[in-house]
Formats: sequence, C-alpha cells, structure tokens
Amino acid sequence: MGQIKKLLVANRGEIALRVMRSAREMNIKTVAVYSEADRNALHVRFADEAVFIGPPASSESYLKMDKIIAAAKQTGADAIHPGYGFLSENEDFAQLCEDNKIIFVGPSAKSIELMGSKLGAKAAVAKFNVPLVPGTAEPIDDIPAAKKLAKEIGYPVLIKASAGGGGKGMRVVENEAEFEEQMERAVSEAISSFGDGAVFIEKYVTKPRHIEFQVFGDKHGNVVHLFERECSIQRRHQKVVEEAPSAVLTPALRKAMGEAAVNAAKACNYYGAGTIEFILNENLDFYFLEMNTRLQVEHPVTEEITGLDLVQLQLKVAQGEKLPFKQEDLIMQGHAVEIRVYAEDPANNFLPDIGTLQTYVRPQGHGIRVDDGFEQGMSIPFYYDPMIAKLICHAETREAAIEKMIRAIKDYQITGLETTLGFCEFVMKHEAFRSGQFDTKFVENYFKPEVLNKTGNNEEELLAAALASFVIGQNKTTVQEPNVVAEESKWRKNRLA
Amino acid sequence: MGQIKKLLVANRGEIALRVMRSAREMNIKTVAVYSEADRNALHVRFADEAVFIGPPASSESYLKMDKIIAAAKQTGADAIHPGYGFLSENEDFAQLCEDNKIIFVGPSAKSIELMGSKLGAKAAVAKFNVPLVPGTAEPIDDIPAAKKLAKEIGYPVLIKASAGGGGKGMRVVENEAEFEEQMERAVSEAISSFGDGAVFIEKYVTKPRHIEFQVFGDKHGNVVHLFERECSIQRRHQKVVEEAPSAVLTPALRKAMGEAAVNAAKACNYYGAGTIEFILNENLDFYFLEMNTRLQVEHPVTEEITGLDLVQLQLKVAQGEKLPFKQEDLIMQGHAVEIRVYAEDPANNFLPDIGTLQTYVRPQGHGIRVDDGFEQGMSIPFYYDPMIAKLICHAETREAAIEKMIRAIKDYQITGLETTLGFCEFVMKHEAFRSGQFDTKFVENYFKPEVLNKTGNNEEELLAAALASFVIGQNKTTVQEPNVVAEESKWRKNRLA
Repeated sequence: MGQIKKLLVANRGEIALRVMRSAREMNIKTVAVYSEADRNALHVRFADEAVFIGPPASSESYLKMDKIIAAAKQTGADAIHPGYGFLSENEDFAQLCEDNKIIFVGPSAKSIELMGSKLGAKAAVAKFNVPLVPGTAEPIDDIPAAKKLAKEIGYPVLIKASAGGGGKGMRVVENEAEFEEQMERAVSEAISSFGDGAVFIEKYVTKPRHIEFQVFGDKHGNVVHLFERECSIQRRHQKVVEEAPSAVLTPALRKAMGEAAVNAAKACNYYGAGTIEFILNENLDFYFLEMNTRLQVEHPVTEEITGLDLVQLQLKVAQGEKLPFKQEDLIMQGHAVEIRVYAEDPANNFLPDIGTLQTYVRPQGHGIRVDDGFEQGMSIPFYYDPMIAKLICHAETREAAIEKMIRAIKDYQITGLETTLGFCEFVMKHEAFRSGQFDTKFVENYFKPEVLNKTGNNEEELLAAALASFVIGQNKTTVQEPNVVAEESKWRKNRLA
Repeated sequence: MGQIKKLLVANRGEIALRVMRSAREMNIKTVAVYSEADRNALHVRFADEAVFIGPPASSESYLKMDKIIAAAKQTGADAIHPGYGFLSENEDFAQLCEDNKIIFVGPSAKSIELMGSKLGAKAAVAKFNVPLVPGTAEPIDDIPAAKKLAKEIGYPVLIKASAGGGGKGMRVVENEAEFEEQMERAVSEAISSFGDGAVFIEKYVTKPRHIEFQVFGDKHGNVVHLFERECSIQRRHQKVVEEAPSAVLTPALRKAMGEAAVNAAKACNYYGAGTIEFILNENLDFYFLEMNTRLQVEHPVTEEITGLDLVQLQLKVAQGEKLPFKQEDLIMQGHAVEIRVYAEDPANNFLPDIGTLQTYVRPQGHGIRVDDGFEQGMSIPFYYDPMIAKLICHAETREAAIEKMIRAIKDYQITGLETTLGFCEFVMKHEAFRSGQFDTKFVENYFKPEVLNKTGNNEEELLAAALASFVIGQNKTTVQEPNVVAEESKWRKNRLA
C-alpha cells in the first residue's frame, strides 16, 4: 500500500471541497464527480479533473457505485474518499473498491457491516465492557416476567414494540404501580400496529444529552480518541449546533467515556475516522448508542480544539501509515462551537427553503472558519441536503466562543432564502445553552418561531443586503458626517438601478 | 478603572477591523475614525459609529491627536486602541489620552518613551542582564584604542559612524590586519558626510536572523512571553513572511530568549502587548535589538499557535485585569506561517502597485485565516501602507503549514494590480526556506524577479479571473464531459459581455 497519488471524492458540496483541499495540501491530485445539478458546483471547479455521473437524483448519480468506480478507473484514481452520507457507510461499496484495487478511505467493509447492525454492534461492544442502556436483550410478552425485569432495571422504563420504529409503540412508565396497565396497552398497540405483541423493556434516559467521541485507528492496531463533541441541540432529530468540549464532562468522565469509545472501536477492529455516539443522563451515566463509521459533519470542532486535520489523518491511515501520536500526546486547546447553516425556515418547522443566494457574504476574523460549497449567486439544489455552510468558532473559553459565534452570525449576510442563522443566534443567547444545562429536548422545550425576526424579504432589508454584498455592514453605522450618508444613499440607488 | 464600554480605534484597514471584531465579541461598542480616502472603507461600515477626521494625508487625519481625542469625546468612547503604526508608539498621545481620562490600550507613556530611545532602551535592558551586541558604549575616534577594543570584541567587527544611519558610513572588518586602514577610511567618510569623525565599533553579526518574542504584562507587575516569531524574510528591510515557532530555536534557547524578553519588558515596567526584537547569529547567540511597544502586524501567528486572542487580552489588561495565565500554563500548538499580501510589484523592486481589486476571492478552509480590509471592487488608496491582506496558515507541523500556504496562495484570486503572492509562493517553495537555513539576506541571496510568472494582465488571465470572481477555479479542470466546457465558455462570454 503506497502513497495515494490521485483521490476521487465521491461526494459533493462543502465536504467534497474540504476533502480536496486537504488532499491538495498533501500533493495528491483530485477528481470530482458530479450530477447534472452540480455542473457549476465549486467542488467541480476546484478539482484537477471532474467526471459527470448522471441525473440529479442521488440514486442515479452519487449513489451509483458502478459509475463511481468507472470514474476512478477512467481517471486513474488510486483512492476514493466517500465524504459523509451517500456511500460512506456502505460496506458493499467499500468491498467493491477493494475488489477493484482502489483504496477506500474509510474502515474495512467488515467494520462497516458489523456497526451497521444495531443489535450486532451492541453485542460486539458489550464484550468489550462498553455500557449499554440497561434493558431486555430479547423481546418479551409475558407481563409478570416483564414487570420483574422492569424493577431490576429501575424506573422510569421505556416499553417499545420489538417491530416498531420512529417512536411508534413507545411508552414511558414512571413507576411500578403503572406498569401492568401500560404494558397491556403497549402490547395491544403493538399487535394492532405491527401484528406482533413482543416488546423490549429498557431504562428510560431522562434529560438525555447526545455526546459522541471521535475515534481514530490505524491498520496496525492502534486506536485513540480525540475527545468528545456535544451534539444535543437538534431539530427534527438532526444536529444543528455542536461543540467541543462538552460543558458537562469532567476529566474523569471524559477519561471513562474515551476508554469506552476506544474499546468500542477495538470491538470491530476499526481503522480510520469513526464516531462513538453515547447518550448521557442527568446523573452523568453514559450508554453506547451506535457507531458512525465515517467522518462526521461536525468533525471541524474536533479539528479546532486538537489542531489536527482529520481528513489528512484519514488519508495517511488509508495509505497504511501509523497514527503519528499516542493518546497521551493529545490535548484539547480552547473551545469550539459549530452551527449548521441550512436553507430552512425555522418558523415553518425547519422545512427546506430552497432558492438562490442573492447575497452571500461570509463572516471573517480570528478563530472563525466557514466550510461551504457555494458563492453568491448560486442556487441550493433541492435534490440534496439543504446545508449551505458550517460556521465554526474557536476561542479560549466556551463563553468567548459563544460570543464570537454571535458576532459571526451577525456578520454572515445571506438573503434570498430563509436560514437557520437566526435560530442559531437564539440558541447562543439562550440561558439554558449558555449555562450548559440543556438536553436533546432543547428545541421543543424552549423554541417558539415567534422569537425570530424573519430575514431577507422586505425592501429595506434587500437594500441593506445589496450593500452588504459589496461591503460588510451588518451594524447600523451612526455616521457623524453628513456627506457619507448622502454618498451612501446615492451609491445604494446606483447599485440597485 | 472599570470595564471598557466604547472603544475608538485610531487606525484603518485590516487592523481596525480586526480590533473591532474582538471588541464586539466582548460586547464593547466600537467607533471608527476615517479620512476622506476611507469614506467607504470596511472599518467604517463595521463600526457602531464613525467620525470623519480629515483629508487623506495621515498627517492631517490619522496622526492628528487632537482630532482623535475630540472624536472620542464626541462619541463618549472611554478607550482608544491605536492599532500599529500611526500613533501607536507615540508617548505624547498615550499621555494625552490619560490627561483626558481615556484609557489608552497600550503601555504607559513612560514605557513608550524609554523604549523609543535606542540608547536609553539598551541601557535599561542591560541592567536586567539582557544581552546586547558587544561593542563600544561610547563613540570613539582614537584608532589604537579602537583597535584594542575590536580585538576584545572579536572579529568580524562593524565600524559605524556615530552620526550615521541607514547603512551609511558602515564598514565590516574581517580581521585585525585590515583594521587600521578601514577605521581611517570610516573616520574620514564620517567627517565628510556628517562633519563628525566619531564611530562605534561593534560585533558584526554574520548570517543574522530576526527573531522576536511576544511579551505581555498586566498592571499588577506580571509579565509573560508568548514564544517567538521568526521574521527573517524581509524585502526593503521590511518583513514579508513570518512564522511561529522558529525553525531553529531549541527548547533551551527558547527558554533563555524568553526569559531575556520578559526581563527586557520588566526593565521598563511594561504592561500590555509588546515585542522584544533579537538578532540571532549562526552560532545561535542572541542580542537585544529593540522593543516595539504595540501590537505587531504579525501577531496572528502567535494567536494561532497559542489559541489566544491578543487584542482581547490587550483590552482586558487595559481594563486593569490580571493576566489570566502564568508562564507555565502557556503551550505552543502546531505551526503558523503568515505572508503579507502587498499591492507591490516584486519584479520592480517591490514598489507599490496601487489600483483596484478587479477580482478578489479569498482562500478558504481549515487552518486558513485572512485578515484584510477590502472587498472586490475596492481600490487600495495610495496614501497609506499598500498591504491588502495578511494570509495566515496554521497546521500540525511546519511542513504542513507551508504546504497549506502554497495551496492557499494558489486559491487566492487577485487581479487588477501586482501583489507579493507570487513572491511568497517562491519563498514557500525555496529549499533555503523549507530547510530552515536562511537569514535576513534571503531576498538578496536568492530572489530574482525572472523566477516569477507575472499575473493578471493578459486576456486569458482576465477571463479566468472573471470566472474566479464568481467561483473558485484556480486549477485547470480537465472536464470529462463536453457539455460543461461548452457551457462554461458560453457563460464566460456572457460574463464579460
């Protein structure tokens, strides 16, 4: 396994650009693939070569394994980076790369397959002493036996249909007195909904926080963790604000969770970048949820606090190099917060608001990073995830990072569509977030669309935005000298003429 | 001395913006001042308030102490940050602020005054055991006495006219046999040029490197250093590439120089941000040159490797807060390189090339920071320093930071004027720079204008630049699918129509 000379990035948008930039800094040539919808996309412009792979629908382009393998062969690419989403956690694709003697920049097909199975993953990590949410290992329908188990697990417990999903057929039981009645209802609901009355009983996690650990392994059996990311602020069960480190982890808890994360990775002989997701309750007990066998969207916060380039590390591991550090060499420096800027309307249940970036001016300055895949004038295609950008702020302390984020959000000028910027500003200013006392229910507990000032669509704001597309001007400037006001007004008129 | 509520920034361009951003992140209101030439400047747009202070010439605006004090009073600003240049090292201005009960964000007038005198500064630091270039303390014109001193100092020595400056009347003497003849010539030259035959004899530093230490003091007597910056790559005796840490400092040498730097700061009861400049010879002997009693242009490389915001630290110290760390808490993480992007023509002896930024697209990505004060379409005023931007790259290692810089320079799209970008790329790729074996003579030893490809002024490049102003496209994209090429070509034509 030698040096990678040419890398095909089987993805689009910000992550394709981000991967290619790191590859270029290692003097690796880059190949883009693109669908009909991405003809003018920045990742296509940036790459040394670009291959067209089909119609806009992902299923006809970015998910087409044979087209992507063919593109790699056609261009002589010796490695493929899958980014996140699309084919990044597809064991068949990893295997297909191997069969075609192309390096897959990710873990082995076997690791992906094992961690892709919820039950298989739990069984595997349990052998490595990674804590799981206490509960029944097998489905049960015998009420007295279930009640006995519930008592052992400890209330509150969750009863959920073995055949269910997405919250359907789930019941929280607060104490033993309620158990029989709730179980009877759960079983009858499960029968009527799924035709199967079997249920699982498990510990109900109160005030859950989503804490994940970045792990990294090489092909020589070394595995480390790169500390945690707190991802509890979610909307529609998807992350929208992430940070590192978490506001609630103590050094001792970090050590314990980090060791569990490394063990979970070892349980599937992991190499490359991976993420171990834990759920943390209000007593700071943590339980393994699942492993993501790829680079995460929110990996930049880890890069900011560790000073590492995770994509370059992925490429080095894929080339067969050993990890260039040991666990004890790694330290965290400062605090990083990331927000995801989506083309969505927070006032309309965060539904996508696809359109054109009429104004697009990025914030700048010390400790500010914007990972995006668009320029002013471009449209957000509705075929794909509506993320416009990730805005990452890094500062000495959590408080300073939050203040920097508020400043950066104000400096970020986007018009033409609704975004999550205003929502994220609401989060940054909310007492629950600032105090660190929040959980995955933050949005449903605190957010009301009325708190936001809608942006972008009245005449005055469009005027200001046209100005902003030329200069940064997010604050009302009380100018002391009349000529400037007059000139500015004339200039605004000319701009819009 | 309470919290600063409103800060006037007595500067322009990138440093005014950079200071205001940090102030805003501390919830401090900001006031800009601006000359006639800066009516539309970004720092004016960014500020909460802006005050017009006069004609373009600095002597009539940014250097006018009374106008700036009046602007502060008019707006109710309780503090003034001077940036660098202009009034930043003017003890009268610091005193004037104090007299008007306005906090000067910098050291005391006394510290500025003491360090502003070359002889006074040397005498002061010598008492604190800071090493000086060995030489005569007093001017001398007696040849036999001078010869005896030269022998004590050790050859090669430098003879320089007491009344001279800028290299005039300076002679290097390699060995004792040459001394008398050279001294006679030096004395007679000094008499004819300056009417005064007195000369200084000092050790001639071979292969000199410019290494400076960032120091920080508070008003409670605490002083630390924030490690070094290597600034040996200079053109016209001005820095153009800086990095931290230096490629040649060992931990032991860093400790010794750091202690000397802290002592030099203590010698003038320093508080705030300051820089101790040393000269380092090829045997790694170091000597104090001078102290800069302000924030340096190149401060971002220190921010990148320490994770600190030096402007926020300045503001905190100015408010009377104690330094929030001790020397032993400070660590360096990774390596940072800064290049200065000047509107200058390296092929024409780095003379300013003032004009309009017809294309201006910044590089982006992990570990890349651009501090600038312009947007596409703006002109670089010829009244001031022609710096367009500072481009800073931070990575895990020196090699990775250099590779990132090469990539970032390629991604930086500037047309309409000549810049130092190509020259800086030449530096980054030069073996002497990469190996770390270079000194302040780098440009005269290695640089020939012929090595550069001139940028920006032929039709093909203007076409490409017009494209780049919309999308990032610095690399030739070998597109595999013909439609894209056709579309792109059509689109380019439309853009230019």
